Amino acid sequence: MKFNKINSVQNIKIKSVLKLYKPSERIKKSLMIIEGFREITRSLNANCKLKEIFFCSYYANDKIIDFIKSSDSSIYECSKKVFDKISYRQSPEGILAITNIIKRKINDLEIQSKSIFLVIENIEKPGNLGNIIRTSDAAGVNGIILLNNKTDINNPNVIRSSIGSFFSIPIINTDINTFFNWANNNNIKTFATSPQASTRYTDVNLNQSLAIIFGSENKGLSNKVINLSNNTISIPMLGQNDSLNVSSSASIILYEALRQKSL
Amino acid sequence: MKFNKINSVQNIKIKSVLKLYKPSERIKKSLMIIEGFREITRSLNANCKLKEIFFCSYYANDKIIDFIKSSDSSIYECSKKVFDKISYRQSPEGILAITNIIKRKINDLEIQSKSIFLVIENIEKPGNLGNIIRTSDAAGVNGIILLNNKTDINNPNVIRSSIGSFFSIPIINTDINTFFNWANNNNIKTFATSPQASTRYTDVNLNQSLAIIFGSENKGLSNKVINLSNNTISIPMLGQNDSLNVSSSASIILYEALRQKSL
Repeated sequence: MKFNKINSVQNIKIKSVLKLYKPSERIKKSLMIIEGFREITRSLNANCKLKEIFFCSYYANDKIIDFIKSSDSSIYECSKKVFDKISYRQSPEGILAITNIIKRKINDLEIQSKSIFLVIENIEKPGNLGNIIRTSDAAGVNGIILLNNKTDINNPNVIRSSIGSFFSIPIINTDINTFFNWANNNNIKTFATSPQASTRYTDVNLNQSLAIIFGSENKGLSNKVINLSNNTISIPMLGQNDSLNVSSSASIILYEALRQKSL
Repeated sequence: MKFNKINSVQNIKIKSVLKLYKPSERIKKSLMIIEGFREITRSLNANCKLKEIFFCSYYANDKIIDFIKSSDSSIYECSKKVFDKISYRQSPEGILAITNIIKRKINDLEIQSKSIFLVIENIEKPGNLGNIIRTSDAAGVNGIILLNNKTDINNPNVIRSSIGSFFSIPIINTDINTFFNWANNNNIKTFATSPQASTRYTDVNLNQSLAIIFGSENKGLSNKVINLSNNTISIPMLGQNDSLNVSSSASIILYEALRQKSL
């Protein structure tokens, strides 16, 4: 089997991939970069179309080579030097793909009995978001809703730190009013988290359809979100610090919801 | 007030600071680097001695300048260029100190009624360890025990991601046998976490003196640790992934222990 070979980092295809590391370019082209075999196969399950696949036989194992041989995407075989240039992993597996960005709206979210939605206002760090997606997958979250999100979430670091869960949970961007209208119309109880809240997260009924809302690390939740929410809850903190990492807070409350649902 | 001024990155004091970014140098000299006002003041509460303080008036606020004026450590005023060279923060506050490394042994750990100890075998990422320390502080953990730890924990990234909790919780290094002897002698129940365990973490009694043991992200716990533990517990995972981030797992189980203790 013959593939297009790329031996120069000056190749126009390579330059296009590198440009996609810029959020503005991803938004303009509606494309994103996915690296890694698990991530790429999961994106296919989520109905992503692989536009181009770049691989490197120096790194790729037999499973990856078999996958490439059976793919009908455009395939480019890169020299090690070229692949190292486009890869963002410390230990590359030798496969990277360009795919369309998934676009969803809030009304695309499926609501089941006792659904859990995780909501974040002004998320800051891609690594935190990726880890929150990973925990959400494990805790059976039905969707992630980002409020006033100003960054492109189709960030290679988000995908990497989600270890592929990025493709298994619907993630949508919306504004505060649209979110609360949707929650109220669908009978989803909204729980804003705030260190100042007097009600502990373990003292509320999380065994119902609900949306748990977290603020950014630096600013917490806006007053608007706190005022529009049905409840405000806190996680007790016994030590010197006045805050937890947002990803830890999300893990704690999501798993308390799961515990209550399993009783 | 006059301080020693440093305007060259070639200054011998600056070269000494830069060397301390190497784990081997920190171990050899038994010194570490602390950056940030909160972190430095907390290290003083933990009885660290500030050997040298480096500051930069371009960044430092009045609170920092007042602190420096009242300190009896050796103080060096750095130009912006010099401070940027030794700082490891994206937004420096303009203060960095060199202090002695805190050395503790397992028998230094204070055991109270219903103490919680968090144990990690082969911790890998400094950022994960730092965040685990931060959550442990909030959850009232009495001590962190690292088993077979091969990396220097007095890492600037650990201190930074712990947001200073590094100095409020005793952290010790030891080996597997010493740890289990100590736990058995002190009637501390040991709970090994493993995705394969059939008992859920919510179905065991965490309202007692206990040590919760986590493995590394890549390898999990060793068979030796699992076999020596009193119990093996798992966190249910409903999604596609077969693991959680170790910092998320620790957050979930520590807060379940806290919930059970508060009932």
